[in-house]
Amino acid sequence: MTTLEVLGRSACCTPVTADAMSRADAQAVAHALKALAEPARVQIISLVAASSDAEACVCDLQDALGLSQGTVSHHLKVLVDAGFLQRSKRGTWAYYRLIPGALESVAAALTAPRR
Amino acid sequence: MTTLEVLGRSACCTPVTADAMSRADAQAVAHALKALAEPARVQIISLVAASSDAEACVCDLQDALGLSQGTVSHHLKVLVDAGFLQRSKRGTWAYYRLIPGALESVAAALTAPRR
Repeated sequence: MTTLEVLGRSACCTPVTADAMSRADAQAVAHALKALAEPARVQIISLVAASSDAEACVCDLQDALGLSQGTVSHHLKVLVDAGFLQRSKRGTWAYYRLIPGALESVAAALTAPRR
Repeated sequence: MTTLEVLGRSACCTPVTADAMSRADAQAVAHALKALAEPARVQIISLVAASSDAEACVCDLQDALGLSQGTVSHHLKVLVDAGFLQRSKRGTWAYYRLIPGALESVAAALTAPRR
């Protein structure tokens, strides 16, 4: 289970602002936020979402970001490991798309009806 | 203008998933996320929101987190500087409350209607 799946489970019950959050839930939220908290990774999420078919390969991202393939691959691995992107290999290239609901889980953990 | 105010301005126009985001906007989003991406800071936000009168002092937070006053003060400064908390001094203690809309700005930057 990825951190984000843990976060998805906890987000329904203990959003950040609804009640005092346990240390374990806070760690899951912080881990997911940390995976996103890098300008290139925010841009990657944005580029993947804005791509035709909502899918992008390393080559597309490399050109758009002006970063080396190794650097882009590192950022993609962090986002895959954190549960934000899924990877599928077709032919020479790996393609990346957003995991539905992943960003929404983080957003839901940050905001909740005020008491 | 805090990073979060910049983010608030940009979030309305270029959410992460609505279109390819500029490097400057991605930096503002990443900066705000980084301020939150620490378990103790997630817990502080949660504890402040759950406090009576939606306000907490360092002493309340220190007891709840089991951290030193210096460590709690450091985390509070990061959250104030990033635009998530406001500080008001009354008597001996400083009190902290959430800045309305700040967490929502970050959440809105992460989620947007898909194209």
